[in-house]
This record gives sequence, structure tokens and C-alpha cells, in this order.
Amino acid sequence: MTNTLSDSNPRADSTSGPAPAADPAGEAATSVTRRPSVPALDAMIGVSLPCLDHGFVRLVDYMGDDHAIVQAARVSYGKGTRRAREDRGLIRYLLRHHHTTPFEMCEIKVHMKLPIFVARQLARHRTASLNEVSGRYSILDNEFYVPDPSVLGVQSTNNRQGRGEPVTPERAAHILDLLKRDAATMYAHYEEMLGGPGETQKTGEQRGEESEGIARELARINLSVGFYTQWYWKIDLHNLLRFIALRADPHAQYEIRVYAEALASLVQRWVPDVYEAFVDYQMGAASLSRMEIAALRALLKGEKPDLTALGLSVREQADFKKLFELT
Amino acid sequence: MTNTLSDSNPRADSTSGPAPAADPAGEAATSVTRRPSVPALDAMIGVSLPCLDHGFVRLVDYMGDDHAIVQAARVSYGKGTRRAREDRGLIRYLLRHHHTTPFEMCEIKVHMKLPIFVARQLARHRTASLNEVSGRYSILDNEFYVPDPSVLGVQSTNNRQGRGEPVTPERAAHILDLLKRDAATMYAHYEEMLGGPGETQKTGEQRGEESEGIARELARINLSVGFYTQWYWKIDLHNLLRFIALRADPHAQYEIRVYAEALASLVQRWVPDVYEAFVDYQMGAASLSRMEIAALRALLKGEKPDLTALGLSVREQADFKKLFELT
Amino acid sequence: MTNTLSDSNPRADSTSGPAPAADPAGEAATSVTRRPSVPALDAMIGVSLPCLDHGFVRLVDYMGDDHAIVQAARVSYGKGTRRAREDRGLIRYLLRHHHTTPFEMCEIKVHMKLPIFVARQLARHRTASLNEVSGRYSILDNEFYVPDPSVLGVQSTNNRQGRGEPVTPERAAHILDLLKRDAATMYAHYEEMLGGPGETQKTGEQRGEESEGIARELARINLSVGFYTQWYWKIDLHNLLRFIALRADPHAQYEIRVYAEALASLVQRWVPDVYEAFVDYQMGAASLSRMEIAALRALLKGEKPDLTALGLSVREQADFKKLFELT
Amino acid sequence: MTNTLSDSNPRADSTSGPAPAADPAGEAATSVTRRPSVPALDAMIGVSLPCLDHGFVRLVDYMGDDHAIVQAARVSYGKGTRRAREDRGLIRYLLRHHHTTPFEMCEIKVHMKLPIFVARQLARHRTASLNEVSGRYSILDNEFYVPDPSVLGVQSTNNRQGRGEPVTPERAAHILDLLKRDAATMYAHYEEMLGGPGETQKTGEQRGEESEGIARELARINLSVGFYTQWYWKIDLHNLLRFIALRADPHAQYEIRVYAEALASLVQRWVPDVYEAFVDYQMGAASLSRMEIAALRALLKGEKPDLTALGLSVREQADFKKLFELT
Repeated sequence: MTNTLSDSNPRADSTSGPAPAADPAGEAATSVTRRPSVPALDAMIGVSLPCLDHGFVRLVDYMGDDHAIVQAARVSYGKGTRRAREDRGLIRYLLRHHHTTPFEMCEIKVHMKLPIFVARQLARHRTASLNEVSGRYSILDNEFYVPDPSVLGVQSTNNRQGRGEPVTPERAAHILDLLKRDAATMYAHYEEMLGGPGETQKTGEQRGEESEGIARELARINLSVGFYTQWYWKIDLHNLLRFIALRADPHAQYEIRVYAEALASLVQRWVPDVYEAFVDYQMGAASLSRMEIAALRALLKGEKPDLTALGLSVREQADFKKLFELT
Repeated sequence: MTNTLSDSNPRADSTSGPAPAADPAGEAATSVTRRPSVPALDAMIGVSLPCLDHGFVRLVDYMGDDHAIVQAARVSYGKGTRRAREDRGLIRYLLRHHHTTPFEMCEIKVHMKLPIFVARQLARHRTASLNEVSGRYSILDNEFYVPDPSVLGVQSTNNRQGRGEPVTPERAAHILDLLKRDAATMYAHYEEMLGGPGETQKTGEQRGEESEGIARELARINLSVGFYTQWYWKIDLHNLLRFIALRADPHAQYEIRVYAEALASLVQRWVPDVYEAFVDYQMGAASLSRMEIAALRALLKGEKPDLTALGLSVREQADFKKLFELT
Repeated sequence: MTNTLSDSNPRADSTSGPAPAADPAGEAATSVTRRPSVPALDAMIGVSLPCLDHGFVRLVDYMGDDHAIVQAARVSYGKGTRRAREDRGLIRYLLRHHHTTPFEMCEIKVHMKLPIFVARQLARHRTASLNEVSGRYSILDNEFYVPDPSVLGVQSTNNRQGRGEPVTPERAAHILDLLKRDAATMYAHYEEMLGGPGETQKTGEQRGEESEGIARELARINLSVGFYTQWYWKIDLHNLLRFIALRADPHAQYEIRVYAEALASLVQRWVPDVYEAFVDYQMGAASLSRMEIAALRALLKGEKPDLTALGLSVREQADFKKLFELT
Repeated sequence: MTNTLSDSNPRADSTSGPAPAADPAGEAATSVTRRPSVPALDAMIGVSLPCLDHGFVRLVDYMGDDHAIVQAARVSYGKGTRRAREDRGLIRYLLRHHHTTPFEMCEIKVHMKLPIFVARQLARHRTASLNEVSGRYSILDNEFYVPDPSVLGVQSTNNRQGRGEPVTPERAAHILDLLKRDAATMYAHYEEMLGGPGETQKTGEQRGEESEGIARELARINLSVGFYTQWYWKIDLHNLLRFIALRADPHAQYEIRVYAEALASLVQRWVPDVYEAFVDYQMGAASLSRMEIAALRALLKGEKPDLTALGLSVREQADFKKLFELT
């Protein structure tokens, strides 16, 4: 993995500018605390970072800061190394050497609104805690993800899981029309199965015994994975960095990348020393195989190593040359 | 939770009969091993237990048996308790006292085909390992869950998340028609977005540069959560029992219950002593609150306790009377 | 499990009194935050709750409160159940029905000093994050747990893992003398192996090349599991409640119970509604087996059930009679 | 991390030779199974690989093989990529790109005997399941780790956590004498606290009410972390590889390295394709930071980059030059 955070989601990238205004609903009262606080992140509590056409990441709570990592790491050193060592240096040392447990000492919680197909990818990160809107209890909202034409790419021919150039404007218009039309039909039928649009406005108590509406848990199976869901999502910093490294990567699907980058912008405000080290040692880093190390040693001695003989596959040779700008 | 495994999925309940014939595709060669084997479960390898209209649970592999639990538990006892103690008694003791770690010593792996909305519930069990069909790499199958009219219930009025009586046959026919029609439309448009039905038959290499098909990862957002997916799913016995206890419960959605019961039928063949204890101490058990214990003590002394004064809510009082068949 | 928190550690049980004075070292500056705060717990930040003879639990940080659980749970209910429901009632409902995920939304972090044999039991709770003093980097302190004579019990004859009545004062004095003498010898030899007591005061840089001290990672193997270690320990509320339920139980070893009770006193300050429900539905609750439910139903009808015929073991019958105060 | 498995534990490295004879106690009967089997590993069931002076790793059970990983990975590819692809190539692709979940589909279980201080390091790997001898139930064995003089190194001056050259033979003799003497004293007093050496031979039932022996859970606190313990330990292949990468590394303590290498020898027999890829892409690989990549690009263009200006610390510069054999 060799990449830095791209600007694929300018809307979420508000880390260098002033904090957006808080949502009215999120206007938390302030209180005095003896806990460590990070003013730059505290200002974001209740603020929604827009993602895609209807989604968001909204900071709910956090625990810890750059120093909390150092504090936990230093307990390991005790007497023998009590002399002051720069926090930033220790954080870089820890990340470089994959001493990951101190990064578990920070925690963050966000409220997210995201399409179901994105939620399914996030749910694979099993170390997070989450509470999601239930289609068994609740009537789901009529909100569906419609891609911007600029990201409506063809199936990539050299990358089995990616997308290539955008389709023509006419083709895009046709596809978006299909998506919107089908979503509208699905939702209309969802409401009809629930007993009619009027029914969806009622509480369980108001819905009479005579209603012909089938159970919500059944009706919702007519909705596509493009519909939005919501959840509270909580994760420690170590596992959040792993998430970002995997999902802000150019190989990740664009739609989850947007969320990963919104979360990365929170990390940058929250623990700036960690974020800097993360870019240097993870996002911008590359893992070299045993064979690639051998090839580099030879190259640096002025030799011309036979990459095939060293064991690099055709794909690996191409990646190797690209990474080191060789011809 | 006070229930035993119901017969809501007769198709999956093949534990008392002969083992179904193996799938042709699953005809594994036999080999000789020094590992502990369970002939009753071994016979199920490669066998698909049908679930819902198109799904299945198919046993792929397993590790351990009743004795493996005892073996791991006994390492704790060492010298002091070396005298022979019946395996079954120890298993019951362990389950009764929630000594759960020895049950982690057994592992099972299955291949499952299941609707996406069921898969999303299973994925919440974070201790399982899983590898799922990717809609980014693959073209998904045109298979969609259509409920049997007998389970097409109205929204329950006394249970917010459940379903009540089946709707009328006319209403059922209408709803099933909506579901089938929408599924057909969604899939047809999915194929159209991919470049036409012909395209879906081609490999990536056969699809030309000039294809107007958009990326699979985008087209699939038009498919509903009623479509089937597939995965390999692996879990240890302790966490599988927790899964079954939660998902074979009458409060669980019918569709996941079907899968939980298919898995329970495998557990019954695999570790019969554990399964018996599981029914006695978990599936058929109930947790009594501090207040309920006080109420029972009074009742057993012939007193008439004031349940409200003891702190039981109205709902708790009803549940309490039902559990103990009081009037 | 049928018990409430006993008073086995009066020193740690400061929940009903005023907050102890903060450690000088822990005098955290206060800051203003938009995060939810709990003044009763905030006052405890930096305060050490003494445990055993040299140990402590010291609150470092926390995230969330009673309302954070309700907030996460309510996201599941959405539109259909928006009417106000009392927070306390919802918390009790969630705990009663083992809807555990919302309790993962709160997190706590403590600094602990504890004997190694207690640390080994805590480390079995794998959902916690921890950073411990390393005997490879650091020179360990000369602090060793010496039990109070009042807890120096004989091996229990009816409980394989517990302890019975205290030994005689003479015997206690002899045993404590053995423990203290051996600990002093171990530590003196530890220092000697490190190159002498003087060496232990030096930093790595001050220790010369010519030192005859062996590596710390080797010398420390001479220290017993009664020596104290320290760590930062972080866990979510759901898993903390499970920890307390298991380790504040009378069957747990006294020494870990002391720590479990100190942690319980923090929970009581932090999330009082959760704590109350936890006592009612977990600490003070009991799990009834399928057979015990059948026995109770019969008893409540005035019958005299044959407990053996119902399948209760001798031990289970005794426990059953004791729980319900039957003769 | 740039290293291969060293030969620091020749006793455990039996992978290239014939399988050692099975323990008499481990003479498992063979059975016929439809599960995938690996004859080279199956032959090791019940065989103890000696570790340190009294320890071992003994294979108990396993699940899966090289093909099981491919099988799970391929479910992701479905129709689109059904053409045959070499298993070995796919395994290498997966490991290279950190697609780790298919490696969770294999599982291994071993019985281990190991010093407590090594057990404490292993227990930090929280994804493993384990059941350990309990010092509360059992009387612990009189077996204590005594290092071989060849590994009795001084504290390293350039590596805070490591050890340097062995001490002089005289010093070694003195230190080993201290360790042995203290261990003998600790154990003698342990027995005395339990009521005398005779008592330790009795079962709980044989020990009379009048015994002056204190509870086992207390007496054991006099034993050092050099004493041996035993456990059953079960882990999936993905997490086992992470364990080996961390603990077979030269920076790990020698004593845990011995166990990591014994486990590595089992992996090599079990899943040879995975093991080969693991050596190429993990054990023998190196992670290059963003700054190191920039430095290499410059070097390969014949430039002389200023490593300090690029942001490499003094330590990083030394590591960089060593890795690429620069002067």
C-alpha cells in the first residue's frame, strides 16, 4: 500500500479550515471535566461531515489524546527509562515498530448515515461496536444513494474489483434513471406492504388490528442495498487506523473511501502526532518482500538483478518498477 | 429465554433420520487421520441442509468432539482431581456454571447460502470468521427470497419486532406478486447496467473495452436485501451455542431461526452431551431476577407477595406468571 | 449466581461517602468539554482506591454515561417508537433481555497496581486493552503481596478452589514469615543478578559495559507471582459488567474480588441506572435450568416433585433448596 | 521486521527430518474421515516438540489445509473468475495484499508446557483460546526453568529489552545456583504451606478437616514466574502467523522464540504453500516508510539524498543502511 489520503471527498475534508457549525440537534451543553480534552476535536462534537448524497459522519464522543498513548506506553518502561523523551518521538517509534496496544487506549464514537452496501463493508471490522437502526422495529426512510455521474465508471478491465472511466453522459443519465425509478418503486411497494403510506406514519399503537400491513421485518426485504441506514459506531484508535489504511486506500470502493476520509479528518484533529506518523509509516509506506529487498540490494550495488529469477511474478515486477520509478 | 428448539424448519431437521445423501459436488474422498472424529457428523460433510426457498447450510469441516471439551477442562484440575469423573457430568457442570472457555476448543465450518438480510444479522456475531461472495468481483445470482404464504404474517401489535397471524390468501398473493415483480425488475436492470444479459456470462477478459457496463460494485446497489448471497462461516462451539440461543429463540426473525436450527441439528450430531446440557441449562432455562427470586421464596412459603411492591414491572409480572403457570 | 456485592473490601467501598482526595500526582487540570460528563465520576479522576496491601485502582478516563446507552439503543427504534420512554426503564429492559451491545458504547480506563497472580486472572478477559510494566525494560519494584491473617484460610474441603476458615494465629504467623522471607530473598537475588542493588538505580546509559548484570528479562524469573505489577486497563461497560459478575462473585478468589469491587464502586458512580439494573438482573439473579423450572411449577401447584426423577444432580438439588429456602 | 526463522531452537526444528515417535500417551487410534487431512501434520499428532529444559509443544488437533484457504477465498470471486488459477499463486497473492480473512479458515490446537513468564507473553495474543492448569484447583509441579549458560546474557546496552553476550562461566554458575536454590526453597515452602509434602500427594477428599494446609490459591503465590505451567492453546492460522512474526523475531525474548519456532515448524508441515509465502512476504519482508521510499527513489536515480532532511531519525538511518547494505 503506497498512497496518501486523496481528495476524493472534498466535502468531508474540513480539517484545515474552521470547524463547521454544529447541527442544531447536536448543540451539546458544555461541562467542566478533569478528563483530557482536545479542543480541536471537541469543537466537532455534534457536527455532521457530509458523505455522499445523503450520508454523514457525526462525532458523538471521544476518549484520550496523543498523550494518552504515550502515558500507556511509558508504563512499560518504568524506572529504567524515566528520563523525558519527546512524546512525538515515542509515538513515531511505536507506530514504526507496530507496537500497537497503546493506540487501543483512545476511543471514538460517531453517528453515521450510510448506504447499506457501505454498512456491510464496515461491519466486517469486527472490533468496532455498533448499534444500527432496525428494520424489524422501525420504518426505514425513503433515502437512496444515487451516484454522482462523475463516479459512474465502467468495470475496470485491469482491476477486477474497481471501476474505470466514467460512462458517457447519455449512458449515465439512463443508469441514474433506472436507479431512481427502481428505488421509487421499491419504496412505494414497501409502504404498500406495510398497509399504505398512511400506515407508515403511525405508531404501533395507532395501527389497528385490522391492518393488512405485513411485518416490517418482511416488507423491508424489498429495499435495495442502496438505501440508507444509520448507526452509532465506536472503535479504538488502533483499529480505526487499520480501518482507514484499508478503506481510504485507492483499491477500496469509492463510496466507503468517502467515509474513511471523513474519519481520517477527525483523527487528524484529534491526535495530530499519531496522524502524522500514520501517514509516514502506514498510509505512505510500502511492504517489501524478501525478493524485493534482494533486488534493491543488487540495484544499489549497480547490478542488474534478474527479477524473474529472484521469484517476482510479472505483476510484482510491474508494481516494483512503478513504486521505485524504474523503467 | 424459555424455549426449546421448535420445528419451524422441518426441512432442516434431519437429525433423527438417516443422513441425507451427499451433494455430488461435495463427494469428499475419505482419508485416515489420527484426529478425533465423530462419525455421525463426518457423514454430513458435503451435505446441504436446505433452508428457506433457495438457501442451505452445508458442513465443510469440524474440529473436536465432546471429549475435547473435557480434555481441555481437565487440564485445569491436574493432580488433585485425577480420579475418573464422567465426561457427561463434567460437561453439564461446565455449562451450568458458565465455564465457557473449554467449549471454545471445538470448531465448525460451514458453507451457507442465505438472503442478504439474514446475512446481515449473522455478521453481527463478531467472533465468527467469514468469507463472502463479493459483489465487486462477481456477478450475483438471480435468486431472491420469496416467503412461503404461511409465514407472511401481519405486524405484531404486542411485539414490536415480530409478526402475527398470516394475511389473507388474496393479500398474500398480491404481496408475493409485488416481491417477485420487483425482484425481476431489479435484476433485469442490474444486468442492463452491467452491459446486458450477455455480458454477465463473460469473464473479465472477454468483456471488451468498449463495453458500456458500469462497475459491478455499482450495479449491485440496485439489488435488494432479499437476494441470496453465499459465504464460508467458521465459529467455535461456545460462540455457536450463544448464536443458537439467540437466533433459535422465538423472538428471533423466522428466517434466521431456520438457519439457527439447521446449525443446531449439526451440533446435536456433533457433540450430543453438550447439546443435551445446552437444552437443559440454556435453551430451556430462564434467568430469574433478584425480585423474582424474592417472590418465589414468598410463594413457596405460602405467602402472597405483592409483585409491584417487589419491583416487578407490569410486563415482568405477566412473564413471571406465564413462566410458572400462575393465575 | 445469586449474590450481591459483599463488603469484603471496605477500603475500596467509598461509593456512598465523599470522594477521596485526589492523588497529588493525579491533579488533572480541568477543561471545558462538549462531551457528556458525569460529575460523580469525574471527581474520581486521579483518585486511587486502595486494594490489598500495596495495590490500587485509579481512574484515568471514561466515555459515556447512562444516557449514552439509551441513545445508542434508541437508534434501533427509529420512527415507530419515537414516543418518550423513560431512560431507566429502557436500561432495565435491555439488561433483562441481554441486549448487550448498547452497553459497549461506554468505556472506562484505569491505572491498576496488582499482584501478578491477580493480573493473570484479569488478563483472561480478552476484550480489555492493557499496557503493563515490562520486566524486560524495567526493574521491578520490591513490593510483594502479604495476605492479612484474617484471609489466610485453609483449603476448603467442599469447594475445590476456595478457602475455608482462617488458620490459627501461630500457623498464620509462620506462613507470613515464610512468604516475607522468601520474597526478600528472591528480590535480593534479583538485584544481585542485575549487578547489585546499586545497578538497579541506574539508567541503561549509566550501566557500564563491564557490568556483570544479566538481562532484566532473565533476572525477573526469580520473582514470584505475589510481586506487584502495574498496568493501564481499558474496557467497555458491557464487558466490565461481565468481569464484575464473574469476579465479584463469592466463588472468585478473594484477591481479585477486591479489585472487582473497587471497579464496581466506580460503575455505581458512573452509571447509577445501569448499576441498579445490573444488581437486579445479574448479580442478584439466578439461572434456572429446564428441570428446576419444572420442579418449581410442581411445587407452586402444591405437588411434591421428585427432584431426582426430574434430572437434578445431588449438588443441584442442594443448590436449589438453598436458593429457595426449602427444607 | 526483516528476518527469517533462525535456528535458535534446534531441538524443536524437526521439520526437515522424519517425524519423531509419538508419545505413548498420545497414541491416538486412527479413524477414517471425509475431512481434509494433511498426512505430514497428522503424523505429528501426540508428538511432543521439546522446548527449553522441561517444556514442549504437542499437537492435539488441526482443521484445514492450504486448499481450505483457497476454497474460502474463491467464494469471493464467483462466476467472473471461475477459471482455474494456481492455488499457490492465489495464496501468495492473498498474503502479499494482506487479504487475511481466508487464513482464519484453518485452526490448530496444541498442548503446551511453558514457564509462567512465557505464558504471560502468549496470553497477550487475545485471539487464541486457552485452558490452563489452575493453581486454585491443582498442586503445581516442582519444575522450574533454568537457562542454559549459553543464553545467560548480560543486559544489552544498545537494546533496552534484549540481552548481550553471555556472562563468564563463573558468573553463570553463581547465577544458576541462585536460581536453583531459590526455586527449591520456594517449592519446599509451597509444600509446607499446603500442609507438608505428604499432603500434596492426596486428593481433596483424602485431606482431612484438621489439615493445617492453607488454600492452594494462596500457597502458590510463593512460586516464581520461572515455574512451568501447562495449557491447551487453540488459534486460527491468520493469528498464528501474526504470533510467529512477532515472537520468532530476533527482538522477542529468546524463551518465547523457542516456542514460536516449534509452532512455525508445525505450520511448515501443515500448510507448506502458506509457510513459503509467509517467509517471503512477512518474515523476510520489511516495511518502508514514506521517507525511505523517497530516499530509495533518489538513490536509484544516482542521487545522494539527505536522509536527515527527508525526516529519517538517526536510528532509522542506521536501520536503513543496514537493510540495504549501504555504507
